[in-house]
Amino acid sequence: MTRQGWEVGILGATGMVGQQLVRRLEGHPWFRLAWVAASERSEGRRYGDIPWLLGGSIPAYARDLRIEKPVPGRAPRLLFSALDAEAAGRHELAFAEAGHLVVSNARAHRLFDDVPLIIPEVNADHLDLLPAQRAARGWTGAVVTNPNCSTIFLALVLAACRQFSPRRVLVTTFQAASGAGHPGVASWDLLGNVVPFIEGEEEKIETETKKILGTCGGSGVTPAPFVISAQAARVPVLDGHTEAISVEFERPPAEDELIDALETFSGLPGDVDLPSAPEAPIIHLSERDRPQPRLDVHRADGMAVCVGRVRRCPVLGYKLVALGHNTIRGAAGAAILNAELLAARGWVGEGAQSWS
Amino acid sequence: MTRQGWEVGILGATGMVGQQLVRRLEGHPWFRLAWVAASERSEGRRYGDIPWLLGGSIPAYARDLRIEKPVPGRAPRLLFSALDAEAAGRHELAFAEAGHLVVSNARAHRLFDDVPLIIPEVNADHLDLLPAQRAARGWTGAVVTNPNCSTIFLALVLAACRQFSPRRVLVTTFQAASGAGHPGVASWDLLGNVVPFIEGEEEKIETETKKILGTCGGSGVTPAPFVISAQAARVPVLDGHTEAISVEFERPPAEDELIDALETFSGLPGDVDLPSAPEAPIIHLSERDRPQPRLDVHRADGMAVCVGRVRRCPVLGYKLVALGHNTIRGAAGAAILNAELLAARGWVGEGAQSWS
Amino acid sequence: MTRQGWEVGILGATGMVGQQLVRRLEGHPWFRLAWVAASERSEGRRYGDIPWLLGGSIPAYARDLRIEKPVPGRAPRLLFSALDAEAAGRHELAFAEAGHLVVSNARAHRLFDDVPLIIPEVNADHLDLLPAQRAARGWTGAVVTNPNCSTIFLALVLAACRQFSPRRVLVTTFQAASGAGHPGVASWDLLGNVVPFIEGEEEKIETETKKILGTCGGSGVTPAPFVISAQAARVPVLDGHTEAISVEFERPPAEDELIDALETFSGLPGDVDLPSAPEAPIIHLSERDRPQPRLDVHRADGMAVCVGRVRRCPVLGYKLVALGHNTIRGAAGAAILNAELLAARGWVGEGAQSWS
Amino acid sequence: MTRQGWEVGILGATGMVGQQLVRRLEGHPWFRLAWVAASERSEGRRYGDIPWLLGGSIPAYARDLRIEKPVPGRAPRLLFSALDAEAAGRHELAFAEAGHLVVSNARAHRLFDDVPLIIPEVNADHLDLLPAQRAARGWTGAVVTNPNCSTIFLALVLAACRQFSPRRVLVTTFQAASGAGHPGVASWDLLGNVVPFIEGEEEKIETETKKILGTCGGSGVTPAPFVISAQAARVPVLDGHTEAISVEFERPPAEDELIDALETFSGLPGDVDLPSAPEAPIIHLSERDRPQPRLDVHRADGMAVCVGRVRRCPVLGYKLVALGHNTIRGAAGAAILNAELLAARGWVGEGAQSWS
Repeated sequence: MTRQGWEVGILGATGMVGQQLVRRLEGHPWFRLAWVAASERSEGRRYGDIPWLLGGSIPAYARDLRIEKPVPGRAPRLLFSALDAEAAGRHELAFAEAGHLVVSNARAHRLFDDVPLIIPEVNADHLDLLPAQRAARGWTGAVVTNPNCSTIFLALVLAACRQFSPRRVLVTTFQAASGAGHPGVASWDLLGNVVPFIEGEEEKIETETKKILGTCGGSGVTPAPFVISAQAARVPVLDGHTEAISVEFERPPAEDELIDALETFSGLPGDVDLPSAPEAPIIHLSERDRPQPRLDVHRADGMAVCVGRVRRCPVLGYKLVALGHNTIRGAAGAAILNAELLAARGWVGEGAQSWS
Repeated sequence: MTRQGWEVGILGATGMVGQQLVRRLEGHPWFRLAWVAASERSEGRRYGDIPWLLGGSIPAYARDLRIEKPVPGRAPRLLFSALDAEAAGRHELAFAEAGHLVVSNARAHRLFDDVPLIIPEVNADHLDLLPAQRAARGWTGAVVTNPNCSTIFLALVLAACRQFSPRRVLVTTFQAASGAGHPGVASWDLLGNVVPFIEGEEEKIETETKKILGTCGGSGVTPAPFVISAQAARVPVLDGHTEAISVEFERPPAEDELIDALETFSGLPGDVDLPSAPEAPIIHLSERDRPQPRLDVHRADGMAVCVGRVRRCPVLGYKLVALGHNTIRGAAGAAILNAELLAARGWVGEGAQSWS
Repeated sequence: MTRQGWEVGILGATGMVGQQLVRRLEGHPWFRLAWVAASERSEGRRYGDIPWLLGGSIPAYARDLRIEKPVPGRAPRLLFSALDAEAAGRHELAFAEAGHLVVSNARAHRLFDDVPLIIPEVNADHLDLLPAQRAARGWTGAVVTNPNCSTIFLALVLAACRQFSPRRVLVTTFQAASGAGHPGVASWDLLGNVVPFIEGEEEKIETETKKILGTCGGSGVTPAPFVISAQAARVPVLDGHTEAISVEFERPPAEDELIDALETFSGLPGDVDLPSAPEAPIIHLSERDRPQPRLDVHRADGMAVCVGRVRRCPVLGYKLVALGHNTIRGAAGAAILNAELLAARGWVGEGAQSWS
Repeated sequence: MTRQGWEVGILGATGMVGQQLVRRLEGHPWFRLAWVAASERSEGRRYGDIPWLLGGSIPAYARDLRIEKPVPGRAPRLLFSALDAEAAGRHELAFAEAGHLVVSNARAHRLFDDVPLIIPEVNADHLDLLPAQRAARGWTGAVVTNPNCSTIFLALVLAACRQFSPRRVLVTTFQAASGAGHPGVASWDLLGNVVPFIEGEEEKIETETKKILGTCGGSGVTPAPFVISAQAARVPVLDGHTEAISVEFERPPAEDELIDALETFSGLPGDVDLPSAPEAPIIHLSERDRPQPRLDVHRADGMAVCVGRVRRCPVLGYKLVALGHNTIRGAAGAAILNAELLAARGWVGEGAQSWS
């Protein structure tokens, strides 16, 4: 079968999120992985020879790729970035300037005025920042980002309740080991323990969510007018961030209205049909002790946010529990979904290719 | 050495909390364990032959005690109850009616109007309910209770801030396996997982705290006028409940005033000196990633609540993290402290004995 | 599409292994689940309403099955038994006597002289016991069993080395929580711990392996002439038993011969093609730190045994590490493979049906 | 109170074992910690300001020590070395040459012909190598080492059975996270997992044990004439290495003789009384499921090896399970015990001091 689509590359292909990208791009209907880059330590190695973190074996299709230096040049136009924040800060703008579309999972540029911070089901319209970004910077490329993992799950929940105007939000997170990358947290520090601090995490949740749910004005985003307070902790879980959320709405719904809003939320603009989009971005579980990371994190192939325990909160009105897969819906899958949105909207289209 | 004190017994001596009572009564300066009782399954066995859950060996002093039926009779006047709620409901009143002082860790009678729900550092004055309890019920005995484990840690924190008038409180708990007793939660259900539901736990935190910090009027307690919302989850931790707390105060302090109030809180009435009372009931840790259950739960021999990460909360004003040992400060140690308070106040005094 | 095959039922459908059977029978090309039975506690309930232990949701196809009493009658002729040993002892023979083919995972009848203890890749010829079983007992049904989980993995490894005549075998196991069923081991007992005792496990490994690799003489099996010593321990792993094995061979191979024998082992008789059989029953991993349960247990859909670290043992000649999925290759998958073998050999054939 | 004793220092004071040394030297009756050194990264810092890995707080007595460069000079004569192997290789000989007594936990010099590898209860007489060491090297100082953690536990067991002449030994280890130091193994790699490989560990067990139980001839040690085969694995346990051991004896005892030999083993030469020596170096537990790391690792303050499940092994004659605390009996406590032996034998005596 001959298919048409786009060649893609990955910046930071050897880390936890980079490997999830490689795994999830296997057999992708639109994208074909043709290029991987990583830091100096891995440069020049065969991709099949790096330590594979995800269980099973490195997908056969990617094994013979050679790991490149992260410099513009022979890289495909569409690039995923799973670089750490520091490296992203150094490399992403250079690639965009050189004409690449950089779909980034890193935090480095998320809060820049002209950089879209996108969850397709929540704010696909924020892509309207791109013309201004290109104009201001004189680029033919672009940088588009996805939010922090914990933020994505909270933002999807709040987006599903937009009609009730969330005003005050408290969230406490139970975050998985994979969220810290690899090697991340030492087993000595996490086994049988709770670490009630994750560098920068609470700030990201408190600020990124407001940009995502804000109003895009072409050259910038007016943040959403609500207040968020986050407490973030690491727990001995492999994959899946759980969030205990309390929300105060300006127009509080009845409980069944709220559940209905969560269950029927789709969010995606009607004109796009993205291959990685879950049938429903939010899955409501009615059992009283769900969601649980070990049992629910893989629903909808890791691309849905599971919510449960929706009930009255004596302080803020409503409380509930949400769960998302931090390296899939919260990172690699989020970036791929963003790239699909870009493609569906014609931003990648110029370079479509055929292959068999 | 001849000492004077009181013989004591334990109802429910074979469970997780019962065993902590046995361990902590070893060498107690005032109390001498002379009697243990448990459910039918264990009745008649030597205490030294039960499965010991706590590591190491059963304390030698208790090994030759014979496990009795939980019926009044030859039991000492002062009894600890570590029965489960259902058994407590059946047995505790019968013992009190038969003239025993029942110091209970069970939830069965905590919310009865005439039953004191005591944390000595918080509301020792609630013992004033006892004359009314005896009068109304025609007892020579009495029932005194300690709160639920998670509640104790929260109540101590709020008591230390009483002067600032807490008004709205949100708490999310990360609770340890030992809190569910033994066998409790199956390893299959808890390994690498978060279970965001604990039967009855949120309700206990939301109601008990208000009684503890309420005003005792002799024949009843007027609950404290604040609102609490709790979300409780089980995490793969052995001992130690961590709590992420947000508080709104009517008279908000400066941050250093708040920390000072926590650090200097003592709470115990000046006229009592209880052997199990920690030097300070609250230990403030200034490291940015503390308290952690595995590292801090044993401070002050498990009798202190550790707090850390005191900082502004954009929604309610302040947020912080608290931690307590759920089977010590939250159960066995709490009950012993209550019994010491009763003794110091003369309620146990009638039957003091000498032994060598 | 109309397919032809057999209706099947499950005895003990609500436990850990019963649920794995339900999951793995979904879409099975030969078998259609039509009947589930369980102990009294669940009898009469809808299968979709039981607590599902395996993550995600109960497969839709099985939700509306009503849970029956475990008594012969309307049950399909071919039955899987995931009963515990005690219940298996009571029910399996009754079903066989009533004409059912009972493919059992329970230990109750494994060591009976006339009961085949089968791993299709190892001793398919032991089905030759069935005529004698039926004759002796006057049955039209039959009982066929699969070995204990740890035993299967060891037996597959030894079968692959049969040509070198294993003589003395030492095995130490690291067994997962799921092996104890549900609720199984309390989280308090297993978190951060090793429990160096599993009731009956070492005996099963030491005896069952010899029957499996023994010589079938029609009316009984002459055990294989080697000696096995096992030490079994439970570790905080969810799925996957790891085994550290040392073997002494009568005709010791060179190291590459041994690895080659493991890698090329297929075992299945040439005349059968079983849908659940893995392409290779043994997967050899050459990385120095593999196999690992979390990374390798799902290879070949949980039906392969992974081996690694094949090297010289100064005491017995060779040592290696093996790993298998205890509730799949070690239980549910093993039973389904046995049923497939029975079907392929014509033992189930009499009652084939069509359905769409 | 004025006491007399020796000032001591620690090389590598900031790692897992270095911190255990600091903790265990608190209040030591003979040694007073006066000097700490570590790698460049920590040099110059106050000891109280390093990240403390062991729970609770840094012992107050050590907080104001300044962390020095690891160079001879102002360091006390008696030094503990908890350096990693590479740093030990660079520094320990220099200190010995400069006149220091280096009591090392590192593997760097353990197998040197003239370096005693000591467990006081097993081979105190191997200190007889010291005169030759000094003579050959022209030193006034010396290097004395303790074995690898897993080796110590096995060697103590074998020493207790010396009279039965162990000939062939198979051991499989279940090793704790703390054995890898800090940060050691990533939580992502160890949570819910078994890692069946530890760099160099099997070789250490197989070779060091034979030196320890060998015969000291003044200028060297003739290794014990038995054969050992080890398989080492890491498991999600915090502290405590469990070992499944099988032994073949030349003169096999009856089972009760073997247990008696383990229970009555003392090993220490009659002329020495060492403050850190446990009452019995081996504790035999008769419960069928012990020892377990979480329940037994702290017995005898972490200085005993617990054994259990002594029973017949069909292959080698006997099998049993042993457990030891890897950073106490297996490292810091082992080194302190060796230093005490040196002191008791007069090797440290020259520089005894008084302090209050």
